Amino acid sequence: MAKVLILSRDADEYRRLLEAADLPALEKLAGSKDPAEALALGNDFDIVFGEPALVRHVLGALPNLRWVQSIWAGVEPLLDPSQRRDYVLTNARGVFGGLMSEFVFGYLLFHERRIFQRFQAQQEMRWDRSSPGTLRGKTIGLLGVGSIGAHLAHTAKQFGMTVRGYTRSSESCRDVDTYYHGSGLADFASGLDYLVSVLPNTTSTRRIVNAALLSRLPAHAVFINVGRGMAVDEVSLIEALQNGRLAMAVLDVFEQEPLPPEHAFWQTPNLFMTFHTSALSLPADLSQVFIGNYHRYISGQSLLHLVDFACGY
Amino acid sequence: MAKVLILSRDADEYRRLLEAADLPALEKLAGSKDPAEALALGNDFDIVFGEPALVRHVLGALPNLRWVQSIWAGVEPLLDPSQRRDYVLTNARGVFGGLMSEFVFGYLLFHERRIFQRFQAQQEMRWDRSSPGTLRGKTIGLLGVGSIGAHLAHTAKQFGMTVRGYTRSSESCRDVDTYYHGSGLADFASGLDYLVSVLPNTTSTRRIVNAALLSRLPAHAVFINVGRGMAVDEVSLIEALQNGRLAMAVLDVFEQEPLPPEHAFWQTPNLFMTFHTSALSLPADLSQVFIGNYHRYISGQSLLHLVDFACGY
Repeated sequence: MAKVLILSRDADEYRRLLEAADLPALEKLAGSKDPAEALALGNDFDIVFGEPALVRHVLGALPNLRWVQSIWAGVEPLLDPSQRRDYVLTNARGVFGGLMSEFVFGYLLFHERRIFQRFQAQQEMRWDRSSPGTLRGKTIGLLGVGSIGAHLAHTAKQFGMTVRGYTRSSESCRDVDTYYHGSGLADFASGLDYLVSVLPNTTSTRRIVNAALLSRLPAHAVFINVGRGMAVDEVSLIEALQNGRLAMAVLDVFEQEPLPPEHAFWQTPNLFMTFHTSALSLPADLSQVFIGNYHRYISGQSLLHLVDFACGY
Repeated sequence: MAKVLILSRDADEYRRLLEAADLPALEKLAGSKDPAEALALGNDFDIVFGEPALVRHVLGALPNLRWVQSIWAGVEPLLDPSQRRDYVLTNARGVFGGLMSEFVFGYLLFHERRIFQRFQAQQEMRWDRSSPGTLRGKTIGLLGVGSIGAHLAHTAKQFGMTVRGYTRSSESCRDVDTYYHGSGLADFASGLDYLVSVLPNTTSTRRIVNAALLSRLPAHAVFINVGRGMAVDEVSLIEALQNGRLAMAVLDVFEQEPLPPEHAFWQTPNLFMTFHTSALSLPADLSQVFIGNYHRYISGQSLLHLVDFACGY
């Protein structure tokens, strides 16, 4: 019999969704948006389903803990080596691809279709017949091709684009036209129209988007970061945008979040910021991830979306 | 042997493309951006390939005329009943779907992803975590399902949407979930999240988007017109936007183009105008349409994309 604790700002909605799923062998189901309040509900939970930033506060207080299902893709708050690792950690995967595609292609089309410039013309009562650009025939480079990168690659093909992928070693997504690994990074980036980072925060991805990489992109290129802020050398990115060596950047993630008021990004030209909203966790989606894994847990099967504490994803 | 006259602002580029195609049985190939200049090149052309607004000026001066291939989808300038109709008229089809999809879904994503609002937050140095919307699960209604409508329907399915189609009678696009015809217009529009008109300008489409139709849409709906301006009752649309009974409208086409300076659209809230640029004719695409039809012409086959002068498309 399982005892499940939900820890999320949306705890009430998650509880409703899990109750409706009529889970087998469920002895106890409790939820809260507050770690202290949650522990008042008991310390006998073997399963925690929630936001890593909240879950970290209860790790030490649950002697029976066996499994944590994260509501997020990124699980950094649970990776601190000083914290316990004697449980199975699974993260959210396979649910963010659609939202990420809407985000990335929304901004690429915003750029190509000159939506901002067209609106400025309208404000000036100018009949602006300047030609828009198109996605068709363009080349997109994906830094990281997991489930989100694969969804982006698929959407890119729908729009008639060429797709390059940079991964540690995997080459499993057939919507990627050419794969690059390791020292092939400079070749990967050379001449890309669009560069999109979907990379998690690990020691090998830190500041991978630096001055050397950005110098490989043509001046008309667009850079989008929907992975983690640590993957970008922020000073080099600001320089590239200020000097017109990059047409546009869209950043959903940052080294420090929320972005401090004194940060130069607030004043950087051709930069669009979206404040870590590119793929919010939707309870309807995430509860499905949990329910699927719960059935595997109850029947003794191995869980999906296991996180390797050492790799960080 | 065929004699071809090109009449377009891009005449030089079209001539280069057609010369490179090494067309069989081609006796003469001439091009100009000016009708008067073109007639100085001879009056013995049997084929004209060009922009309807220019072609209309040479119709009466070409005794051997047998075929006109329009560079545009819309051929209104050639439909005036006082003009000759003793030739075969074909229009441009099958080449605008991709560009139209980029346009329509670019603006829908611009709306759902709150790109404008997010930029305003950035200007105000506000860390704005408000939830964006999504295309997934939404319902789009297409007024007109020809080759452009079919492309829009296909793209909509890629984004996980439900698709309704309103047509005179055809039901051939399998990406349309439900078809409506004739008096089913009100049912078609009821509850749509997005309404997109791809309709040509005909007597039966005139002001089809009127107060009655707009009243069927929920207040969060978006209306996009990439067909012809005459399909919209402009006064009713302005009222709906001013009174918040429609969230946003995107207009590429208008009753009068260019839009006169005194037109109320310039001051209408939540209206985005794109000045008839949604799918510009690209010579590389359009020359392929011509070349395909030219081979059919030379070998005596019937041409593709025939326009019925009475129907207007």
